[in-house]
Amino acid sequence: MKIGIDAISYYVPNHYLPIEALAEARNIEYAKLNKGLGLTSMSFPDIDEDAASMGANAVLDLFQRETLNPSDVGRIYLGTESALDSAKPTATYILDLVEKELATDFGPRSLKNVDAVDMTFACIGAVDALENACLYLKQNPDKKAIIVASDLAKYHLGSTGEYTQGAGAVALLISKNPAIISLGSEIGVATKGERDFFKPRRTHTKSSVLMQAAELLGIQLNEEEAKNKLRDAKGFWGGNTMIRSYVEEPVFDGQYSNTAYVGRIKEALEDFQSKVNLNPALDWDRVVMHLPYAFQGRRMLVNFYLDWMKRDGRWDEVVEAVGCEQPKDKEGSKNWVKTFSKSDYYKAYVNKALAPAERASGLIGNMYTASIFMGLLSTLCDAAEKGKDIEGTCIGFMGYGSGSKAKVFQGHVQNGWSKVAHLNLFDRLDQRTPVDFSTYENWHNECLTIPILPKKNAFVLEGLRTVENQEFFRDYKRQ
Amino acid sequence: MKIGIDAISYYVPNHYLPIEALAEARNIEYAKLNKGLGLTSMSFPDIDEDAASMGANAVLDLFQRETLNPSDVGRIYLGTESALDSAKPTATYILDLVEKELATDFGPRSLKNVDAVDMTFACIGAVDALENACLYLKQNPDKKAIIVASDLAKYHLGSTGEYTQGAGAVALLISKNPAIISLGSEIGVATKGERDFFKPRRTHTKSSVLMQAAELLGIQLNEEEAKNKLRDAKGFWGGNTMIRSYVEEPVFDGQYSNTAYVGRIKEALEDFQSKVNLNPALDWDRVVMHLPYAFQGRRMLVNFYLDWMKRDGRWDEVVEAVGCEQPKDKEGSKNWVKTFSKSDYYKAYVNKALAPAERASGLIGNMYTASIFMGLLSTLCDAAEKGKDIEGTCIGFMGYGSGSKAKVFQGHVQNGWSKVAHLNLFDRLDQRTPVDFSTYENWHNECLTIPILPKKNAFVLEGLRTVENQEFFRDYKRQ
Repeated sequence: MKIGIDAISYYVPNHYLPIEALAEARNIEYAKLNKGLGLTSMSFPDIDEDAASMGANAVLDLFQRETLNPSDVGRIYLGTESALDSAKPTATYILDLVEKELATDFGPRSLKNVDAVDMTFACIGAVDALENACLYLKQNPDKKAIIVASDLAKYHLGSTGEYTQGAGAVALLISKNPAIISLGSEIGVATKGERDFFKPRRTHTKSSVLMQAAELLGIQLNEEEAKNKLRDAKGFWGGNTMIRSYVEEPVFDGQYSNTAYVGRIKEALEDFQSKVNLNPALDWDRVVMHLPYAFQGRRMLVNFYLDWMKRDGRWDEVVEAVGCEQPKDKEGSKNWVKTFSKSDYYKAYVNKALAPAERASGLIGNMYTASIFMGLLSTLCDAAEKGKDIEGTCIGFMGYGSGSKAKVFQGHVQNGWSKVAHLNLFDRLDQRTPVDFSTYENWHNECLTIPILPKKNAFVLEGLRTVENQEFFRDYKRQ
Repeated sequence: MKIGIDAISYYVPNHYLPIEALAEARNIEYAKLNKGLGLTSMSFPDIDEDAASMGANAVLDLFQRETLNPSDVGRIYLGTESALDSAKPTATYILDLVEKELATDFGPRSLKNVDAVDMTFACIGAVDALENACLYLKQNPDKKAIIVASDLAKYHLGSTGEYTQGAGAVALLISKNPAIISLGSEIGVATKGERDFFKPRRTHTKSSVLMQAAELLGIQLNEEEAKNKLRDAKGFWGGNTMIRSYVEEPVFDGQYSNTAYVGRIKEALEDFQSKVNLNPALDWDRVVMHLPYAFQGRRMLVNFYLDWMKRDGRWDEVVEAVGCEQPKDKEGSKNWVKTFSKSDYYKAYVNKALAPAERASGLIGNMYTASIFMGLLSTLCDAAEKGKDIEGTCIGFMGYGSGSKAKVFQGHVQNGWSKVAHLNLFDRLDQRTPVDFSTYENWHNECLTIPILPKKNAFVLEGLRTVENQEFFRDYKRQ
């Protein structure tokens, strides 16, 4: 029985910042970001958009496009690292919104017996949801499962992460006899505890924060005095002695993270290849992987590709492409690899296997959990746009989550794949509204008081409650 | 092929607060908490204990007791609502700690190909992990999977949640031909978006918090002045205009939550009974359910039990137990149910089916995700202690997570169940160290600077890093 991806939907905010504007403001050469990293525009959520609203928009679109019967759906599993609550899963906000919208056609509580949950592992949580959906389908072949990836990638202003920011959601319908991708049941996995990227709670003593406040106000205050002032404080300053603050921007080390990404993929590939006899260079027509920025794949895969060619007995082709044998010394070898990476030979591989997935990434930015699935959608839409027949081709998938874990698996394109053309992905991305740099910066600093786009024709956050026992509960509405 | 629970381990902090001390301090009649709710002592984490350390202790114990070969383990899935990070799963802290401890016997990276992830849905996330572990085992029968539930339940001082607090972790080994419980593959599920209990990020403008600080310091400051002071602020006060703070204490509405719990269980039971022909009163020898406090089950199940007896044609027994027919009027009917709940007949049911699970709950408190599994362990250890042979008996499981979702399933006790006796659960709980009320209160307010118990013979939190790009990363050690 074939199991895999039967339909895909997505939601991306309808405004964007041109990377050129960011490059100018940050005094970075645009070519470095555009030609070097593949970045053209950056998606970021409006002030009334978040992981729940974006996820709900993608899921509702899936229900509507596929005219799904809610009683056929057994699961809505969300992968995210932008969850809105530590206890109540963001998936329940999504389920609730979609269910209310379905009430017109299916009555209330049409998703009553649907299992929903959040899965968290940085950018790979939705791949975990996908794997578990497939296992669920094997035991429940007459059901369908929805997995959603929804995230926003926000980095500190001026940091090296800033130009990789992005946001959006992708929803996949998983079923038997899938129209789009039949997924193989073997998965390679590798895990190692790492600190390459994380979003901690930041712990501060209230007294130290009050001392900083006093300094801002031009007052001398020592620790003991601060503690005394706090003794009978109420509101924000009351309760226990610590503040745990959360900022969306991660603690990260880009170079370290890249090394962890390479290390885990190497190990997960080894695990996969111990189960499935394949040579990725030969057997994978397309490679869809986690893209923190558009050209991550083509940059990172050079060494993997060389390794694959060596193992496959095609080293001669590589040597011919460079024009000489690989030198033995470290520096010479490194330069030789660089030459290969710029060769027409490798470029041809990139254009065939990787570039189709990069297109959407360059127009949206890092979607965290949704990046790999947007890469798949981009690959399919690129083929549809160019009139290529890709039925039967094999796609290799490589997911990565900081912290750290990689998963490697593959799937074959099925005969209904071209229905994704109806999503008009590239046209719709082209039609988004550009915003100027100061609007972007005001959004980043959370200074905006009215939404960038006032009318979205979508689910949006209405506000946070203030009544007792409901404080900070999130209300959404459909505009 | 039988799939289910092959081994169980747990970790509970080695100190506790006697509920009597809490009752006295809060001016609550002790009998109300003890006889009324079943509470005797309350577990809470030491300042060097958290969801990661407690989970790692339970998992390491599982490896050691079962002399597990790491290469047989395919998964370590964590259910928690006390996760320590929004991106890096707490499961990776657990995997890393256990892997380092296993290095002596198995070398480094012995868990390299283990899949780890966090699942979040309030108190039911670990049940979700269990369900998915069973699906995984069906496709990978020669592997084993570990699921961990690790949490701390902390409520505001003086709130109605305070006396239900608890903390700890339970780890389950899932395998084919399980020694303890063979789980049925049918699961009843019901989900509805609710706001009964959640742990939101609390959003404040920095200017409003600075204005409150000024008030504490005896200074008049209006909003515009506050904004001006913040313009070039650094450190905590720098960056964007909002503070998102996180406190462990949830926003909750106890009465609402109870109604949601009853509603979801009712629906999940209906779903389960549409798949499995059973009468819970007759067919479930024991009932293991989520216990926010020890007597939640016996209080909540009265109406369910009456319904089951009616459906099973055993209403005569109920009428005989009360001594008269149920009156038609609302008030009379309510009193009649109350009388039944105090009858020897219902008490006999409680003692047989529910009380075994309540024992540990009354000694620990609410363990959130781990509550249902501690209830199972308590049930088994109670039988072992009393020399009962429970092989072949059927246990009904009812999990609940606020937000909201319930799952209902069942399992049969296998012939190796009595090995849990080696855990010495009740003896070890008896041997814990009591702490006085002021120590507890200082812990709650985060005023303790040295651990309550200095030497734990366990994994403990060593501290949070302060170096750049690693801020707030958590380091643990084994004491």
